[in-house]
Amino acid sequence: MEGDPALRLRVFDLNCWAIRYLSKRRQERIRLIGDMLRQEDFDLVLLQEVWSERDYSDLKVKLGGCYPFSHYFRSGVIGSGLCVFSRFPILDTLLYQYSLNGYPYMLQHGDWFCGKSVGLVIITISGIIFNIYVTHLHAEYCREKDAYLPHRLVQAWELAQFIRHTSKAADVVLLGGDLNMHPEDVGIRLLRGWTGLRDAFAEATHFEGCEDGCTLVPNNCFTDKSELLPFPLGIRIDYILYKAISSFMVKCEELKTTTGAAPGMDVPFSDHEAVMATLHIQRQGQAAGATLATAEPMLVDVVTEARTEVAVGLRAAQRQRYSSGRMALLALLLLLLQAVAALGALAGLDAGQPFPKLSFCLLACLAIGILLLATGLHLFHTMEVKMLHSTEEQMRMVLRTLQECPSDG
Amino acid sequence: MEGDPALRLRVFDLNCWAIRYLSKRRQERIRLIGDMLRQEDFDLVLLQEVWSERDYSDLKVKLGGCYPFSHYFRSGVIGSGLCVFSRFPILDTLLYQYSLNGYPYMLQHGDWFCGKSVGLVIITISGIIFNIYVTHLHAEYCREKDAYLPHRLVQAWELAQFIRHTSKAADVVLLGGDLNMHPEDVGIRLLRGWTGLRDAFAEATHFEGCEDGCTLVPNNCFTDKSELLPFPLGIRIDYILYKAISSFMVKCEELKTTTGAAPGMDVPFSDHEAVMATLHIQRQGQAAGATLATAEPMLVDVVTEARTEVAVGLRAAQRQRYSSGRMALLALLLLLLQAVAALGALAGLDAGQPFPKLSFCLLACLAIGILLLATGLHLFHTMEVKMLHSTEEQMRMVLRTLQECPSDG
Repeated sequence: MEGDPALRLRVFDLNCWAIRYLSKRRQERIRLIGDMLRQEDFDLVLLQEVWSERDYSDLKVKLGGCYPFSHYFRSGVIGSGLCVFSRFPILDTLLYQYSLNGYPYMLQHGDWFCGKSVGLVIITISGIIFNIYVTHLHAEYCREKDAYLPHRLVQAWELAQFIRHTSKAADVVLLGGDLNMHPEDVGIRLLRGWTGLRDAFAEATHFEGCEDGCTLVPNNCFTDKSELLPFPLGIRIDYILYKAISSFMVKCEELKTTTGAAPGMDVPFSDHEAVMATLHIQRQGQAAGATLATAEPMLVDVVTEARTEVAVGLRAAQRQRYSSGRMALLALLLLLLQAVAALGALAGLDAGQPFPKLSFCLLACLAIGILLLATGLHLFHTMEVKMLHSTEEQMRMVLRTLQECPSDG
Repeated sequence: MEGDPALRLRVFDLNCWAIRYLSKRRQERIRLIGDMLRQEDFDLVLLQEVWSERDYSDLKVKLGGCYPFSHYFRSGVIGSGLCVFSRFPILDTLLYQYSLNGYPYMLQHGDWFCGKSVGLVIITISGIIFNIYVTHLHAEYCREKDAYLPHRLVQAWELAQFIRHTSKAADVVLLGGDLNMHPEDVGIRLLRGWTGLRDAFAEATHFEGCEDGCTLVPNNCFTDKSELLPFPLGIRIDYILYKAISSFMVKCEELKTTTGAAPGMDVPFSDHEAVMATLHIQRQGQAAGATLATAEPMLVDVVTEARTEVAVGLRAAQRQRYSSGRMALLALLLLLLQAVAALGALAGLDAGQPFPKLSFCLLACLAIGILLLATGLHLFHTMEVKMLHSTEEQMRMVLRTLQECPSDG
């Protein structure tokens, strides 16, 4: 591509659903993904939910010939699950772990243990600096009553802020990942509005794949059909977004998704469909400058909407902090009462029927257990309150700036 | 300052030692700090250990007239303690929480609960873009056997990476804070070498204050004299560092420190001395480019040294992960044995002397307690291993790049 004024970049993005012991036919699918990536000549491969480092290493060995450069982002207890394979040298990397990511006691959801993050890798191709971001936001388990919406909005906000602050020297910004948000959701509008990123699906000249670009479709044998009942076509939650910062222009020539099982195979690559974009990057005469995709009055509305949701989450977190604190205090009180009773008994002051020793000890153990648990919860919800409060304040500051001097937005 | 080609910037940095209920004469000192800041006309004030948001609000009210712009960084359970006051509008902020920061069970040290972070605020003065960073790294409790050295090195590395990635559009970069490292320590050399930041104390044309620029001195009535015994002059752990990125030149005209109690007062501002720098910023003909302060062969040595220390920490964390995992397994085994015994007793299979009920229940409670605690520890040390491993790998990658193509370093 050297010397060519126009650059064509093929990007592959997939949530691989590769959870050890839990994901069906994991090893077989990882093998299939590796085979396919080796056959197709993408320039960049952005993967999520590669939770096992062994799977990453296997892919690395298999793809070493065609994608000699790669990076795996470690984080949390299990790992971020994020990795990148590239045909071009990776010059630098950075990981930003989201400050909120669900609750450690929601074991059945488990997002907290993954340390959800955004990973950045920097590459240059023909002198053009690319900032490539890969991420995976908190899952949505119940759309009607989405308890994780404030956390996901904090993540979307931190993602946008991280991109804005780290991409100032980039010529082209590219974000791929499972955002766990529908295209019209407030988090996506916030992310796009505040960063100026454009949606490859919406911008693509040519599209081929699942209807409406859906990436979680009933046609895929691994998806939960009952969850998709309200969406007969499926939902679109995996994205490739991009923008050019300086004097470059990016166009999405073609966007494709997989459509369930690939031809000649009985198993899809994952429960998600892969998103594949062909981008056309060209140097243009004058610098475009950093522009926001959303008109400012609309951006004000989006930030206001997001701030309202974060404020709702803040109040819920404050209530939980209060209840857990009260529970800890009650347990402490019970323990103190027991200590007084025990001392009284030792001093021979007890009158009437003595409390059975066994029940007394069990009660004390229970009180200690509740005290420790409630204290832990209280600390956790204190942190949650801090981060929600901080995000809400940042959004308020941005709103003030947007409203005061709209031209500087 | 508009239209003036040279800019003079006065920066104030102080670790305020304002821990509610613990720090001596806290409110009085916060009042004194506020009074002094109002009298002196600094341009930027970078504070650490302002743990109480109430103290921040009091300062904000008091300083509103002379420093109309300010930001408080919230993080962790207690808060990051970081805040910034500025005479110039704060355009944007970002917080990066370090991935490692001590241990939650080291209650007597408590660093973990603070969510140690680096805060970034962006301001422009006369069209010059300033990226201002404020931070506070993990404390050093025992210099001879510093168990927190690997964590502090990870923090220094993440600080350097965060600065490198977020400052690419800045004209001037400024870092102030309590780094908890002596000037010759590997962490400081790593930070300076990898970012190109220069030490205001070493560069100052004129210096006034504690000998050797020390900021923790025996002369201060709040410092622990026994800790400073090996250092009769005190130690220097609070810094103002800076660099110009593009076509600007920064010089430190003057550096001052406070020297224990201020004249006419019987109480110092804090147990740390404040650092005050007057910087001279001038536009210069050609762009200086992003240069590293340390020559590359020396940088290779520094990164190698840091990597060795991180690897030592990694091995210790792996050992702790292993022991806590083994402990959890043993507790689980004990519980299972008890369950079998209880079931046996219920089925009337027990022969001989029965185990007393009270001891049996207490043992079960103990086993459950150990199981929960050991599992928590195991998860924590798994995260620790992940982050140390990740940092070690990043350093290895940087070393390879530095050694392979030294001119691109």
